Amino acid sequence: MKNSGKKKLSTEPYKGVRDFYPEDMFIQNYIANTMREVVEKYGYAEYSSSILEPAELYEGKTSEEIVNEQTYTFTDRGDRRVTLRPEMTPSVARLVAARKRELAFPLRWYSVPNVFRYERPQRGRLREHWQLNCDIFGVAGIEAEIEIISLAANIMRALGAKDTEYEIRINNRKSLNKLLNEFSVSEEQKKEFLRLLDKRDKIENFDEKAKDILGSEISLDFDIDAETKNIIEELKARNVKNVVFSPTLVRGFDYYTGTVFEVFDLAPGNNRSLFGGGRYDNLLDIFGMENIPAVGFGMGDVTIKDFLETHALLPEYAPNTDLYIATVGPEHIADAQELADKLREQGINVAVNMLDKKIGDQIKTAAKQAIPFLIAVGEDEAKTKNYIIKNLNSGKEIKTKEEEIADKIWSENV
Amino acid sequence: MKNSGKKKLSTEPYKGVRDFYPEDMFIQNYIANTMREVVEKYGYAEYSSSILEPAELYEGKTSEEIVNEQTYTFTDRGDRRVTLRPEMTPSVARLVAARKRELAFPLRWYSVPNVFRYERPQRGRLREHWQLNCDIFGVAGIEAEIEIISLAANIMRALGAKDTEYEIRINNRKSLNKLLNEFSVSEEQKKEFLRLLDKRDKIENFDEKAKDILGSEISLDFDIDAETKNIIEELKARNVKNVVFSPTLVRGFDYYTGTVFEVFDLAPGNNRSLFGGGRYDNLLDIFGMENIPAVGFGMGDVTIKDFLETHALLPEYAPNTDLYIATVGPEHIADAQELADKLREQGINVAVNMLDKKIGDQIKTAAKQAIPFLIAVGEDEAKTKNYIIKNLNSGKEIKTKEEEIADKIWSENV
Repeated sequence: MKNSGKKKLSTEPYKGVRDFYPEDMFIQNYIANTMREVVEKYGYAEYSSSILEPAELYEGKTSEEIVNEQTYTFTDRGDRRVTLRPEMTPSVARLVAARKRELAFPLRWYSVPNVFRYERPQRGRLREHWQLNCDIFGVAGIEAEIEIISLAANIMRALGAKDTEYEIRINNRKSLNKLLNEFSVSEEQKKEFLRLLDKRDKIENFDEKAKDILGSEISLDFDIDAETKNIIEELKARNVKNVVFSPTLVRGFDYYTGTVFEVFDLAPGNNRSLFGGGRYDNLLDIFGMENIPAVGFGMGDVTIKDFLETHALLPEYAPNTDLYIATVGPEHIADAQELADKLREQGINVAVNMLDKKIGDQIKTAAKQAIPFLIAVGEDEAKTKNYIIKNLNSGKEIKTKEEEIADKIWSENV
Repeated sequence: MKNSGKKKLSTEPYKGVRDFYPEDMFIQNYIANTMREVVEKYGYAEYSSSILEPAELYEGKTSEEIVNEQTYTFTDRGDRRVTLRPEMTPSVARLVAARKRELAFPLRWYSVPNVFRYERPQRGRLREHWQLNCDIFGVAGIEAEIEIISLAANIMRALGAKDTEYEIRINNRKSLNKLLNEFSVSEEQKKEFLRLLDKRDKIENFDEKAKDILGSEISLDFDIDAETKNIIEELKARNVKNVVFSPTLVRGFDYYTGTVFEVFDLAPGNNRSLFGGGRYDNLLDIFGMENIPAVGFGMGDVTIKDFLETHALLPEYAPNTDLYIATVGPEHIADAQELADKLREQGINVAVNMLDKKIGDQIKTAAKQAIPFLIAVGEDEAKTKNYIIKNLNSGKEIKTKEEEIADKIWSENV
């Protein structure tokens, strides 16, 4: 294995993760930037942390299935147990706990971290994905839920989704807990039931398995609680009208303490949960601290990209490079560079040919990279400083002076 | 360990990695965005990949010290050996190799990945850092070196560095190889010598150790080669004048085949290498493919941040939130939200109070979060739609109509 060239390496990425070529990166950036723009409108500030976390951070608070079967946990060369974060909430709780006294509340924070789960790769589920995490800390009242859910709805709108294409399902863990208190079962059995309920749509014999855990049958068509009712009404007043009460909604994490919500795709071909979140008022106690109320959600890139594909909402690739400068012969590369430097100073993004290739091949290179404009530099151009800008999309050409190139490209007047 | 609340968890991050609070994230974004802006000026397109890579990718090509002692390598639950990438070059080579036929050359790519090394954390060296990687593929001539090095210099300028504050050292591996060919030693011994030379400034008894490897003494004051001479001249013609020939420069990676360069901080208190790169024309052969010439560099956030601190070039924190809306009483939160939504539509980023706190405390919250403007909403404001915008930096206040708030904030005319 030591020497190269002997054994051919595969060019495949590690199983269940993705490579992002410029066309893929464009979509990633489009999704992340749209998210950022909306959350910043609501006054959320960006934070971040490392993907490496002490393994203890997840033990006991994230769902048991995730910790036992789905984390990437290993021992480092210094005998520390390390986990690649499977989600961001424990990390953000750690950051808040560490500076609780200095921070000013309400605290609005967001991040777009990558998170890791060891699972069988399938549609909508990969081993690594990026996820907007958006949280408000320090608000015990339903104003927090209203802001967080309307923010989520406004990201969907900013991505081009119509309100009729998805719905926001909402429930309250307190109602589920109240219902479970009627059964004489342990706290662990209650958690087990909630995790079963979370997977209800994916498993068979739900009723039977529920009975096994709780000892008798359970009816889940309870009435809406006052808190959820208020949240739905207030959201409607703030123009978020596709919200429905969903008594079977639970969400996977053990740490939710109140409201839980989920954004659900209504498209026949993609009928499933897109993302969700909820209230977690007790997460700081793992650090031995007085709690801070918190509401947040995580919105993953893989499911959102599938949603955008399903609803034909993905934008077409456009690189950030505006102009390709081709050269009639290699002797004009220096002239091309000089022109490029001048245009860069005016804010145009310019790539320059560096190879001894035919003009036709250079145009093909620019077109393949989807660069919209091209100028060829030869003896005439170098002498007269007059150039022809070619629009590679329309094929249209216009003649222009050097000092007008930037304006023409800015205004796309070619 | 299972139950929470029993054992207190630490709020510290994993050893040698960083948490990024909004103030830290602001600096990270400032550095990364400045890098992006410059590389995109030169027509580089962004790509990315996962931090998880098959372990074989690094065996034999990255430096031996890094692979044997400094990688994070573990076995996943499916018995695959996985490495957290210690650098980006093998990954980008993998991406290029996988689509070699479809890609158009010259290919200009960049990425800002995080990379991982298990080492003792110290100034300028952490276990995780972010690194601009910028590469041009498909150009065998020195035009590639000239573009890459002038691009690196222009990032330094965009970050505010003066040309006198750093120098660009340049050498050619071919000269070193030619020199080593005069010694009858194995290829492995040559590599060992180059790695020793790379650490010359940090170790004692370099001469003695070099003699141990090569069998006899070596003199390193050889003349500049024609290629390096041309590169330096061309760079000077393109206004990059702080370039010097450095016959002892080698750079750590085994895969360099020609030019190597390094940006070196000249500040007395921070006298050290900031970042570097070089030409690596053979990296595709690990995939059993015909090679593509390549030149690139990696520029890390930790050393750059230290440089900016040393030279007093770090910008002051300014959040993306423009306005905080305070409420005279909790009964005005709904009015505040309504105003906030209107202003958001006009492009203003607004955070709204949600707590029953005194106005003075709300102003403190806004000031602590460094939000520049504040409006308080009470009965009068809700009725008259006239508001007072307070500039929290200057203390200045102006009275304004609802429809003029956005303009006043945009123009910072408060």
